[in-house]
Amino acid sequence: MLAQSGGATAVINASAAGVISEAIASKSFNKILCAHFGMNGILKEDFFDVSDLSSESLELLEKTPASAFGSCRYKLPKFEDDEDIYRTIAKIFDRHNVSCLLYNGGNDSMDTCNKLSKYFDKTGFPCKVIGVPKTVDNDLVKTLYCPGYGSASKYIATTIEELALDTSVYEVGRITVCEIMGRDTGWLTASCAVASLSGKGPDLIYLPENDFEIDAFLKDAETIYRKKGHCLVAVAEGIRTDKGYVGAKETIDSFNHVQLGGVANKLTNLISLQLGINTRAIDLNLPQRAAAHILSLRDQQDAFKCGKRAVQLALEGQSGIMVSIGEDNDNTVYGEVQLSEVANAVKSVPKDYVSNDGAHISEKFFDYILPLIKGEVQLQYKYGIPHYFDSSKLKKL
Amino acid sequence: MLAQSGGATAVINASAAGVISEAIASKSFNKILCAHFGMNGILKEDFFDVSDLSSESLELLEKTPASAFGSCRYKLPKFEDDEDIYRTIAKIFDRHNVSCLLYNGGNDSMDTCNKLSKYFDKTGFPCKVIGVPKTVDNDLVKTLYCPGYGSASKYIATTIEELALDTSVYEVGRITVCEIMGRDTGWLTASCAVASLSGKGPDLIYLPENDFEIDAFLKDAETIYRKKGHCLVAVAEGIRTDKGYVGAKETIDSFNHVQLGGVANKLTNLISLQLGINTRAIDLNLPQRAAAHILSLRDQQDAFKCGKRAVQLALEGQSGIMVSIGEDNDNTVYGEVQLSEVANAVKSVPKDYVSNDGAHISEKFFDYILPLIKGEVQLQYKYGIPHYFDSSKLKKL
Repeated sequence: MLAQSGGATAVINASAAGVISEAIASKSFNKILCAHFGMNGILKEDFFDVSDLSSESLELLEKTPASAFGSCRYKLPKFEDDEDIYRTIAKIFDRHNVSCLLYNGGNDSMDTCNKLSKYFDKTGFPCKVIGVPKTVDNDLVKTLYCPGYGSASKYIATTIEELALDTSVYEVGRITVCEIMGRDTGWLTASCAVASLSGKGPDLIYLPENDFEIDAFLKDAETIYRKKGHCLVAVAEGIRTDKGYVGAKETIDSFNHVQLGGVANKLTNLISLQLGINTRAIDLNLPQRAAAHILSLRDQQDAFKCGKRAVQLALEGQSGIMVSIGEDNDNTVYGEVQLSEVANAVKSVPKDYVSNDGAHISEKFFDYILPLIKGEVQLQYKYGIPHYFDSSKLKKL
Repeated sequence: MLAQSGGATAVINASAAGVISEAIASKSFNKILCAHFGMNGILKEDFFDVSDLSSESLELLEKTPASAFGSCRYKLPKFEDDEDIYRTIAKIFDRHNVSCLLYNGGNDSMDTCNKLSKYFDKTGFPCKVIGVPKTVDNDLVKTLYCPGYGSASKYIATTIEELALDTSVYEVGRITVCEIMGRDTGWLTASCAVASLSGKGPDLIYLPENDFEIDAFLKDAETIYRKKGHCLVAVAEGIRTDKGYVGAKETIDSFNHVQLGGVANKLTNLISLQLGINTRAIDLNLPQRAAAHILSLRDQQDAFKCGKRAVQLALEGQSGIMVSIGEDNDNTVYGEVQLSEVANAVKSVPKDYVSNDGAHISEKFFDYILPLIKGEVQLQYKYGIPHYFDSSKLKKL
């Protein structure tokens, strides 16, 4: 049983393709199921049967963004508080002879995965639980990086490079503020520094890991604008001053995270009012995680291999772990880490990846990111646009 | 002399490459110059000398978005009102022996081009003036379509396809409103309908050509949301009710156009307040015109050929015309049209390209657009992102 969870990425389906193709190749399973809408589908016994998915379909799935089987944002209660839901899941799994659950998600999803695994352990229920890492945010601990990050970074760095060209065409331009995903960590925002390697990068980059000082920002942006005639600023949605999030709104999501938005708008309003300089806010928004038309080959292959490795680990009899990515003498190693170590934990951008003034990225970061955005994936095109997997043709159990 | 004018496109430099390579090949010019920042560079005698640009550089230029030589939004006064500026230009052109001016822009730029051409005619100044069409908006009259539109459309349709996948992953999703460029015409917004051909398109599409009715929109969006669990809406920035632009702000640009923005935000606020449904606003913003990482091959080749044809027309002794694109028995024909006929005129999306309910696109539109977004351009990659032309290495005169 595979379940996809949390916000989609451009390569989450590459992991699914890795899981499904390895499960088929292993000949160890009667049926291969995917839950429709993640945990919600498990609870409703709403499953796709992908046991016979053709290799052509798997190849298309591997290059298709967003969760082909549907996703969820499901928060499992502690089993000390409410054991009923755990019993229900065990009953459903028992009914369908589910011998292993592969749960593909980020740190919130690994919490769900961890709780379920512990319950199965405690009750002796014979189902392995393996986490498959997935997040554009790259904030999972105990793994060198996360599938999803490389492709999102390639898209973001490319978009910023193109925006740097576009926003410098006029003699007297603007201060352009570009908002990039990242509530708690600046991994995605940092990625746009890659465009600076060819001189087409942002002038200023601000991550949530560093205190944001509005006056210093306005001064720096104005200085650059006066000198160059334009200024391109990249900010993470989660940047904060000592008073809190710059882009804070009042809403709270189901995991008690403050929902952010509008950082770029807030900063451009300040630029307008305090500096009187022409300005434009750009929010890269959902395309950051959904754009599969410029996949990183490395990222796509990593995602596939993580899925594949998860099946192998389950067949080796392991449970309660997440597949992790590491390096050994320049070789990529797909290892494992205890779910309890990754659940809810957050990996920040290290201090030495940020420049001394806190307003750009240091050289050291490039050694980290350049391998992750390497290589391109050739897509099929139909009607002039990428031809993606069609979930509506999937077979229900 | 080549000048780039107006907002950039992903293929404006392909036209420049067409102009420069044809000018070099013709061996008819002592020097090939490009004005830095369009008309502003002409007035300051600030020119790049591209006479010796290598074929490698030209090939890179052909795949690079945004105006490599800088652009302008210059409004030339009527020469009856202020002849001085015309005299200045003639003096500068005389000093540099400028025998022809190729002006690459949209309908505002063709106005500048037309006025200058008429002045040169009237005064017998020996400089040909030829317009090269360029606009993502596709709103130039007397040409079947405009270079820039195909690539922007390919990017928009792809992005909407990916957003359709991303916004349908949850069982209970949102109403997502996506704002697309187009103040007066809906060409770009219409393009996203291409994603519908494979079932991954927007549920509702609204163009500025049709009266927008807020109540009908809210009703339709809610009906779709209640049925599917999510709804994806594409709106042109310029949609208007009988009271005016939905996204109107108070600012006016140098051509007296009302500056728009925030349509998606306004509509999502209404959805929140009146329907109480989760919603998200997405503004595709500048990447629509700047994204060259997913160029339309047809568009890029058209842009190149329009540039090339402009040089040929000038050498044939023509002036006061813009290169136009037409069709003859399924063959593309690069013809010409009088500048006075295109200056300031606007071509709307025909009524029969819109569905009867005014909330989607009709079949007929696909015959028009599909050829324009056909084919992909292979880019060079460096540091994992597209390798674009470096304007900072250009030689000044």
